[in-house]
Amino acid sequence: MSTTSTETETVAKTARAAFEASQLIDSAERTRALHEIRKELEANKDSILQANGEDMTHAEVEAAAGRLARSLVKRLDLRTGDKWDAMLQGVSDIAALPDPTGAISYARELHDGLELYRVSCPIGVLLVIFEARPEVVVNVAALALKSGNAVILKGGRESARTAAALARAIQTALARTTLPSAFVQAVETRAEVAALLAQDRYIDLVIPRGSNALVRAIQHSTRIPVMGHADGLCAIYLDAGADREKALRVVLDAKVDYPAACNAVETLLVHERLLGTIWPDVARTLLAADVRLLCDGPTLSALGPSTAANFATHVSPATPDAYTTEHLSLTLAVRAVPSLCAAIAHINAHGSHHTDCIVTESAEAGRTFVRGVDSAGVFVNASTRFADGFRYGFGAEVGISTGRIHARGPVGLEGLVTYKYVLRSQGADGHIVGEFGSGQGKRQYTHQPIDAAELPF
Amino acid sequence: MSTTSTETETVAKTARAAFEASQLIDSAERTRALHEIRKELEANKDSILQANGEDMTHAEVEAAAGRLARSLVKRLDLRTGDKWDAMLQGVSDIAALPDPTGAISYARELHDGLELYRVSCPIGVLLVIFEARPEVVVNVAALALKSGNAVILKGGRESARTAAALARAIQTALARTTLPSAFVQAVETRAEVAALLAQDRYIDLVIPRGSNALVRAIQHSTRIPVMGHADGLCAIYLDAGADREKALRVVLDAKVDYPAACNAVETLLVHERLLGTIWPDVARTLLAADVRLLCDGPTLSALGPSTAANFATHVSPATPDAYTTEHLSLTLAVRAVPSLCAAIAHINAHGSHHTDCIVTESAEAGRTFVRGVDSAGVFVNASTRFADGFRYGFGAEVGISTGRIHARGPVGLEGLVTYKYVLRSQGADGHIVGEFGSGQGKRQYTHQPIDAAELPF
Repeated sequence: MSTTSTETETVAKTARAAFEASQLIDSAERTRALHEIRKELEANKDSILQANGEDMTHAEVEAAAGRLARSLVKRLDLRTGDKWDAMLQGVSDIAALPDPTGAISYARELHDGLELYRVSCPIGVLLVIFEARPEVVVNVAALALKSGNAVILKGGRESARTAAALARAIQTALARTTLPSAFVQAVETRAEVAALLAQDRYIDLVIPRGSNALVRAIQHSTRIPVMGHADGLCAIYLDAGADREKALRVVLDAKVDYPAACNAVETLLVHERLLGTIWPDVARTLLAADVRLLCDGPTLSALGPSTAANFATHVSPATPDAYTTEHLSLTLAVRAVPSLCAAIAHINAHGSHHTDCIVTESAEAGRTFVRGVDSAGVFVNASTRFADGFRYGFGAEVGISTGRIHARGPVGLEGLVTYKYVLRSQGADGHIVGEFGSGQGKRQYTHQPIDAAELPF
Repeated sequence: MSTTSTETETVAKTARAAFEASQLIDSAERTRALHEIRKELEANKDSILQANGEDMTHAEVEAAAGRLARSLVKRLDLRTGDKWDAMLQGVSDIAALPDPTGAISYARELHDGLELYRVSCPIGVLLVIFEARPEVVVNVAALALKSGNAVILKGGRESARTAAALARAIQTALARTTLPSAFVQAVETRAEVAALLAQDRYIDLVIPRGSNALVRAIQHSTRIPVMGHADGLCAIYLDAGADREKALRVVLDAKVDYPAACNAVETLLVHERLLGTIWPDVARTLLAADVRLLCDGPTLSALGPSTAANFATHVSPATPDAYTTEHLSLTLAVRAVPSLCAAIAHINAHGSHHTDCIVTESAEAGRTFVRGVDSAGVFVNASTRFADGFRYGFGAEVGISTGRIHARGPVGLEGLVTYKYVLRSQGADGHIVGEFGSGQGKRQYTHQPIDAAELPF
């Protein structure tokens, strides 16, 4: 084993030990830690932003030399706009959320004096791998603390100085609580991602925060469960029964509100009956907003140079891969479909099971669409951009998952907890299964619901 | 791609198509299919049991030649005891359970006329890989149908004839419903396990039903999520505050009720203060039940030849691997611990996070144990053998999971569903995110709870 692997195993092992030790500490201490972190960040604002300035200077050089993408440089910056304040406010907001642990989701009396409780608890040790945005350190540490999970944070080389300064402040704050200091660990570049992804004995869940390429690479190289989404290939289907105004508004918002987001629309499916009616209006609206349209034969034929001044530059025939490409820009693939069923089939076959929308006035068509489309979000007459943990009312967002196991769609703190079954016998001599059964004198299970919001002991 | 891989991909693809098509069929049809399956099995009892007889004859030959384990031969038999009737009753019991799909677990008004519902739905396509027991075909098909998941069943060569006969009956029954016939597929030996495990594009969850070796091999060879447990290394800790009678009863039941079960106890931890008091009594009881004890120094010294007549043959020093071995027989590893914390640390480090128990009269010790032990089941004064879906009151058991993601512990039908978010706008012109925000004239999210048990449309 290389030195790196040994070091990495130590990081993972101490994280596990910190998690286990933390289980005996009252959850209120974790919320107190969040307030301490906010205070410590405020007290160290100058030095943290100075470290961020150094990262920026270095990144500018790298970008000028073509070794780093311009978009990454911008994401690195913690000094402009309200990014710093928003980061601090996020810590306070997460601290104020209800405790996701200790909640009972199933409680039954199995027999007189034998009570079963399913109680929510942390998953264990999280590994969060992120690119560029250094505020992820604070955001993820806050989510992990609130949900009781130990966390290992692995950032990119480009944000190393900022991440280290933020992690130091978090460590200092943690030292003022009874929580183990290894509860939140930020590892620097020496610990390689591959070595961390091999620690499935100690790490329970990997959360990648960054580009599709990052997510996909991680999904393909670990046996630890990964929560995230690689692609956001969202579609809107304009049904035969679509309302013109709703179609115009919903498609425009879903495409132009924030084209680089995973919940922006990438494919527009148009019912054939709308080709001569609503579709040209929708196209006109999109072209006026500088959207490029990649059209199949029927949707292309339905338009013409008279549609818009930028028709020649912005409208072109779609190649087959247009319907499986996440453009993340002002580009939209368009296709005509003969029926609602054809739209559902297209989405299930070509989409990424993220969020898809139907525009229709028919309740029956809406009903069929939300049942037939196999995606985390299925919307009727509402922009795909609503797919977001804050908009859904979770108060925090861990990420968006296109997996079907554990958590699906926008994930709040609930996605960072699992549960355990607590069984307590208060019988005079303990409960044993040998006394239960169908024979003479055997005990029977009662399976009576118990009303309990938390463990009674 | 080999012929096998192509065939396997076809199986996976048709399963996915069947799942997608089934989403538009009312869930009542799936329950009706279960009643049809029971009828068809009853009508074909003779031919199915004849096929089972052929499998048995073949297996006996293989066992005699040392090519098949004796224990597997016994598990193959569908003709003795109440196995046939129990199999049929299982189908009826699953049919009678509440529908796990279509249930609302979160509902919020995001804004006037914009309603969000989180509704339970099937996961998609399940792959169930099993050994020996042919009744798994019927049991799993019933669970999959009830929960709305398409399923691919892959059994072992030894039960091929029985499994094929059962699968034929299921297919015939399905043909009398509107469900796609590929909803339940049993693949025979030509389709290789490895090829199926590579179909992560079409298969959503793998459920292995069989030996530890089978589960472990599958966990290590697929990127599809696996639900199951490889090991059942359960421990009982006799606390300083343990009651003698409870200790005797709980330990004996947990060890001898069914030693080959995953929830049988494999490790006994004894508080040092009990070495001269309760421990010799516990040892005497276990030795009288023919249990072999692998003891560490202190627990061994506390006993002597006077403990039992079989002391010489049944008590021996424990090697270090005794505490990480799942004996699945009348063997128990025993170790003295100086404290409750040491017991928790031993269990977290050596156990398999399945089910662990403390015997104590101290409410505080019980409280600490259930919080500190990081297992799916944490019991106080109750036998580990209670860890079971039927005993927990689920009405069905899909399996027991030692993973922390998605489902943990005994898994009922709930473990076979996920959810999707349904967002419906009933506003006059559709809802778009561009109108929400903090600026002048912007809309605000209301996030008001909605009282709904099912989708309102």
